[in-house]
Amino acid sequence: MQLPAFSDIQAAHQRIRPFIHRTPVMTSRLLNELFGCELYFKCENFQKVGAFKFRGATNAVLQLDEVHKKRGVVTHSSGNHAAALALAARMNGIKAFIVMPENAPAVKKEAVAGYGAEITFCKPTLSAREETCRSIMEREGATLIHPYDNFNVICGQGTAAFELLEETEALDFVIAPVGGGGLLSGTSTCAKGISKAIRVIGAEPVNANDAWKSFKSGILTPSVNPLTVADGLLTSLSELTFSIIKKNADDILTATEESIISCMRLVWERMKIIIEPSSATVLAIISGNREYFSGKKAGLIISGGNVDLGKLPF
Amino acid sequence: MQLPAFSDIQAAHQRIRPFIHRTPVMTSRLLNELFGCELYFKCENFQKVGAFKFRGATNAVLQLDEVHKKRGVVTHSSGNHAAALALAARMNGIKAFIVMPENAPAVKKEAVAGYGAEITFCKPTLSAREETCRSIMEREGATLIHPYDNFNVICGQGTAAFELLEETEALDFVIAPVGGGGLLSGTSTCAKGISKAIRVIGAEPVNANDAWKSFKSGILTPSVNPLTVADGLLTSLSELTFSIIKKNADDILTATEESIISCMRLVWERMKIIIEPSSATVLAIISGNREYFSGKKAGLIISGGNVDLGKLPF
Repeated sequence: MQLPAFSDIQAAHQRIRPFIHRTPVMTSRLLNELFGCELYFKCENFQKVGAFKFRGATNAVLQLDEVHKKRGVVTHSSGNHAAALALAARMNGIKAFIVMPENAPAVKKEAVAGYGAEITFCKPTLSAREETCRSIMEREGATLIHPYDNFNVICGQGTAAFELLEETEALDFVIAPVGGGGLLSGTSTCAKGISKAIRVIGAEPVNANDAWKSFKSGILTPSVNPLTVADGLLTSLSELTFSIIKKNADDILTATEESIISCMRLVWERMKIIIEPSSATVLAIISGNREYFSGKKAGLIISGGNVDLGKLPF
Repeated sequence: MQLPAFSDIQAAHQRIRPFIHRTPVMTSRLLNELFGCELYFKCENFQKVGAFKFRGATNAVLQLDEVHKKRGVVTHSSGNHAAALALAARMNGIKAFIVMPENAPAVKKEAVAGYGAEITFCKPTLSAREETCRSIMEREGATLIHPYDNFNVICGQGTAAFELLEETEALDFVIAPVGGGGLLSGTSTCAKGISKAIRVIGAEPVNANDAWKSFKSGILTPSVNPLTVADGLLTSLSELTFSIIKKNADDILTATEESIISCMRLVWERMKIIIEPSSATVLAIISGNREYFSGKKAGLIISGGNVDLGKLPF
């Protein structure tokens, strides 16, 4: 199994740069005071489609050859990767087939439809998603762009940390949420490529703690029907992302539902930016481990800002 | 009655610069496509205390002499000016007395208390606020810093437009919300000082349309108990702000409650930033007058982002 190198992330950044937003790195004096550390928020909620996922999808689409571009791409996703692939495909004149769980947030369904993708709904289980995907691949000859179990997608996701570290010096920590592990894989590969001294932490809901279990036991241990407000983090690590995370991440820390929701609200109220629950998980890690992060400089990957405003958790 | 000149706004900007945030000017390709014009959002929701009001309060406080600094400052405000004056006073070691209507949003009450000001609650009428204020002035010798009927406050508010116009070239329009008229007074004085060709528009809820009535009739016509979701725009013009607006603003346009709420939601969903209803009024003006703004470049003053998340209008 080939693991991505730092140079692959640099190459991905060069490749996708004309297509993505360079998102801002925000700070908050108030949150720094509240938590007793220096926080740098890499705001991928301002990325195209409202999430970092656009980076990985764009990197994957740009590397298809002409024959495969004509046949289109297909994926299954709880939302943000779906919108990301739909837009990345459309920007390159490629057809996208998206398999979505029928219980995905309305705002995410609308976004995908708005980007002109062909949506197929399925039951909200991993096996249903994979089967539906497979049948579309057979019928259309479309290339599967997996949301995280994909080398090129992982390299694209790592470019958010690349930009963060380019403009923020001497970070002690980089923290990224972990669901399927694509973002944490790319982030940790990037950070360790820049400096071995940066500690890379995965932030995971305790209610969907497969990465924590796998990391601690050394054995890949997927979650079974996890339930968390962080709807972007329901997926479990793959062999590929687990291998990368084992090698490059320093720890996985978990956050309770209450802490995720209160940190989400805190960022909305104090920073005046919309972040989704998955993103709030990184701040919840800080909140739950204050001594550990006290006086340190931490970069937080704010993964996305797609929230169904009709269904707020507070 | 002395009206502020452009040079007063330049001087205010020099004076308050070390204390304020230079807020970003944001754009949205999606909103530009939706409305068929080029929009530049001056994001005062990211200003200290979450609103432009910090500019005017800081400019006023910095111009007190030592005797008056010792006696403190007092004001009445529906919220953002209260928090702004409380923080501006605290940053300069001055005591602040704040008179607030008892029905002000909880989030605003908490902010003011958090900045260490002494709060006195009163009935939500202009006369009750003014009387309570007067008794505190008599008791403490504190200086009244009126939220908008104050030369120095108006000059401070104009500095948001100053920064917007410094970094955005060739705007056809600058649009600011209008309540008591402090922001529109400062904004219009600044814009006309930079170029007479810039058209300056006030955006007002149709449910609190005193500025529109006054502007059209030429006679100051205060609202009586207006009711609008834009809780920062309940106040009416003063003689001073009316004089400035008559001289420098080109028009006042009004927006319905429905349009304000849907534009607020649109910005939250698409731009991923929290804006309060008063701020959404400027976009509602664009939305309700598409032909007029078609193909034009407009700068929008996003006045604030203080919203009670427990009481959303959508």
